[in-house]
Amino acid sequence: MTRDPKPPIDEAILQLLRERPSAFLSGEEISRRLKVTRTAVWKRVRGLRDLGYEIEGLRRSGYRLVRAPDLLTPAEVKPLLRTRWLGRKIHYFHTVDSTNSKAYELGLQGAEEGEVVLAESQTGGRGRLGRQWFSPPLVNLYLSIILRPMIPPQKASLLTLMAAVATGEAIQKYSGLHPLIKWPNDILLRGRKVAGLLNEIRSEMDRIHFVVLGIGVNLNMERRRFSREIRGVATSLKEEMGEAVSRKAFLRCLLEEVERWYETFLREGGDAILEVWREKAGIQGRRVNITSFGERLIGVAVDVDSDGALILETEDGKRKRILAGDVEYPRKENVDS
Amino acid sequence: MTRDPKPPIDEAILQLLRERPSAFLSGEEISRRLKVTRTAVWKRVRGLRDLGYEIEGLRRSGYRLVRAPDLLTPAEVKPLLRTRWLGRKIHYFHTVDSTNSKAYELGLQGAEEGEVVLAESQTGGRGRLGRQWFSPPLVNLYLSIILRPMIPPQKASLLTLMAAVATGEAIQKYSGLHPLIKWPNDILLRGRKVAGLLNEIRSEMDRIHFVVLGIGVNLNMERRRFSREIRGVATSLKEEMGEAVSRKAFLRCLLEEVERWYETFLREGGDAILEVWREKAGIQGRRVNITSFGERLIGVAVDVDSDGALILETEDGKRKRILAGDVEYPRKENVDS
Repeated sequence: MTRDPKPPIDEAILQLLRERPSAFLSGEEISRRLKVTRTAVWKRVRGLRDLGYEIEGLRRSGYRLVRAPDLLTPAEVKPLLRTRWLGRKIHYFHTVDSTNSKAYELGLQGAEEGEVVLAESQTGGRGRLGRQWFSPPLVNLYLSIILRPMIPPQKASLLTLMAAVATGEAIQKYSGLHPLIKWPNDILLRGRKVAGLLNEIRSEMDRIHFVVLGIGVNLNMERRRFSREIRGVATSLKEEMGEAVSRKAFLRCLLEEVERWYETFLREGGDAILEVWREKAGIQGRRVNITSFGERLIGVAVDVDSDGALILETEDGKRKRILAGDVEYPRKENVDS
Repeated sequence: MTRDPKPPIDEAILQLLRERPSAFLSGEEISRRLKVTRTAVWKRVRGLRDLGYEIEGLRRSGYRLVRAPDLLTPAEVKPLLRTRWLGRKIHYFHTVDSTNSKAYELGLQGAEEGEVVLAESQTGGRGRLGRQWFSPPLVNLYLSIILRPMIPPQKASLLTLMAAVATGEAIQKYSGLHPLIKWPNDILLRGRKVAGLLNEIRSEMDRIHFVVLGIGVNLNMERRRFSREIRGVATSLKEEMGEAVSRKAFLRCLLEEVERWYETFLREGGDAILEVWREKAGIQGRRVNITSFGERLIGVAVDVDSDGALILETEDGKRKRILAGDVEYPRKENVDS
C-alpha cells in the first residue's frame, strides 16, 4: 500500500500546530519548515478556519490550534488508524457526488487495493437499485473502499455479505448494541436502517478488475432531520445509543473490521463469512415477503447459499433461489433483540 | 434504439455517389445538397480515397464512385443489416485501442442497448485474463456490443455462453462448417481457434449496469500471418473454407444471430441457451485438463450448470464446480467433426 509521498500543506500545518498544543508558532517558522511562502501559510490557515478549525492568530506570536472540528481529513484520521493496509491512502472530499462513483473512477485509473474515498457529504449519494442515500454533511459516515480480490466474479456477492458482517461487527463493538443484517445489504437497529452497503464491480468473465465497497452509516443524524418518508424506517447510532458518536473512532473501528473480515474471506473462503452472516441475520426459518425483478414472493427463508443467494421455501413447498430483491419481514417480527 | 440523427459527411457523400453509380456528380452539387463548402467536399473525398475508396474526379464533370473497399463503415454496413435493434447505431473506428475499452467508455457515458463499436484494427486487442488478441487491419472482425439486460449479475456468465452460441451459429450458417465451442469463450474449427469472446461487466450487487460483449473472428487472416506462437492453435474462416469471406456478409449474419439468441435468452431464460451450448460444445463426458486460479485439475467434464460453471468429476470421483479457468483437451481428442 502506498502512503502519500508528501502530505498536503494543510495537513503539514496542522501537524506542526499539534506538536506544540499550548504554544504559539510563528508564521515565519511554519513558512521556513514547510518551505512555502508566508502568504501561502496565511492563506492555508484561512482555509483551515473555513473548514471549522479554530486557529488563534496573534500578530507577534503566530498561530495556535485551539480546537479541531470533527472532520475526517487524512490528517485527522491517519494517526488513529490501526489497520495495516486498508485506508493507508485516503482520498478525502468535503463534498462529492457519490463516494462510490469517485472510487469507481479511481479504480478505472488503477487505484490500488485498500484505497479509500471518504466524504463529509454527498450530493448524489446512492443506495441499491438507483435509490437515493440521504447524505447531509458532517454527521454521518460515507466511504468507499477499493478492493482487487483474485476471485471469480460469481463470488463477488460474498463481498457484500462480508461488508455487512464487518459493518455489523463495527457497530456492535462501538455501541454494544446488537445490529441485525437484513439481506442483502442493510444493517438494522431495532428494526430501523442504521447502515447500508452498495457494492459495485468491474469484471470480465473470469476475473474481477476491482470492487468498490460503498458503506454509509448514520452516526449522529437526529431522527427529526430524516425526511418524512424515511423517518419511520431509518435511525442513527446516536439515536439508539442516546449519545453522540465520535466519527473518527467509529471510522477506525469500521476500517479495522473490514480489513479483518476481508482477510478472513481471502484466507478461509466464503463459508467463514457465511457462518457469521447467518448468525447476525437470523433469517433462517423466518417468514419473509420478497420483491424480486417485479415478482412478489412469500415464504420462509431457509438459508443463504455460498453465492449469496437467498433460498426461499414458498407456500407450495417449492424452493427458490433468489439472487436479488427486497425483503420485508411481516410486521410482528420486525423487531430485533 | 436511436439512429444517428445526421450521418457524417463521409457517409452522406458516399450515399450521393451511390445513387448514380455510373454518372458523375459535380462538387458543386454535392456541396449544395449537403450544405457544406466545396473545400469540405474536396477534403472529404481525399479522406475517402485514403480509406481505399476509388473515386474518379474530373474537373468538368465532378466525382464518380468506381469501387468501394471492403470496409465496415456504417455507410457500408447499415444498408445490409437485417436486425431490428442491434447495430442500428454503430461507432466505427479505423483503428482503436480495443473495441471493448471503447464500448465500456460509451457504456459509462450512457450508450444504449444494441450500440456497437466496430474497428478495422486494434492496437491493444485483448483476450481473456489480460492476454493479447492479434488484430491486424481489414482482414478480420473486431466488434463490441453494449447490452443492458435486467438480470442479476450472477447470471451474467450466461451471456458469455449466449455469445458463444450466437457466434458459433453465425460461423456455421455462413460457412457450412461445424464449429466447436470450447468452454468458456473460444470457438474452434478443426481444433484451432477461429473466434474468441471477451465480456466485460459493470454491475452492482443486484443489477447489471451494462455488459460489453466483445467478439473477435478471424475471417480472411492467412495462417502464415499468425505469429509463430499461435500459428499452431489459430485459424481463420478463409483457411478452413478455402475461399475469401465477405466481412460485411459475415457481420450481417453475426449481428442477426446475436440479436436472435439474446432475445431467446431474455424470453426463455438460460436453459434455452444451455441446451444449444451443450450440443455445440460436446464437452459432456470428455476428459479435460483445467487450470483454474493457479490450480491444475484433471477429470471428466460432466456438464455446465445454469450459472455457466463447469462441473468436473476429478479422478477421485469428487465433483467440482469450476467458475473460471483454461481448458485443455488431451491431444488425441483435440479434433472436432
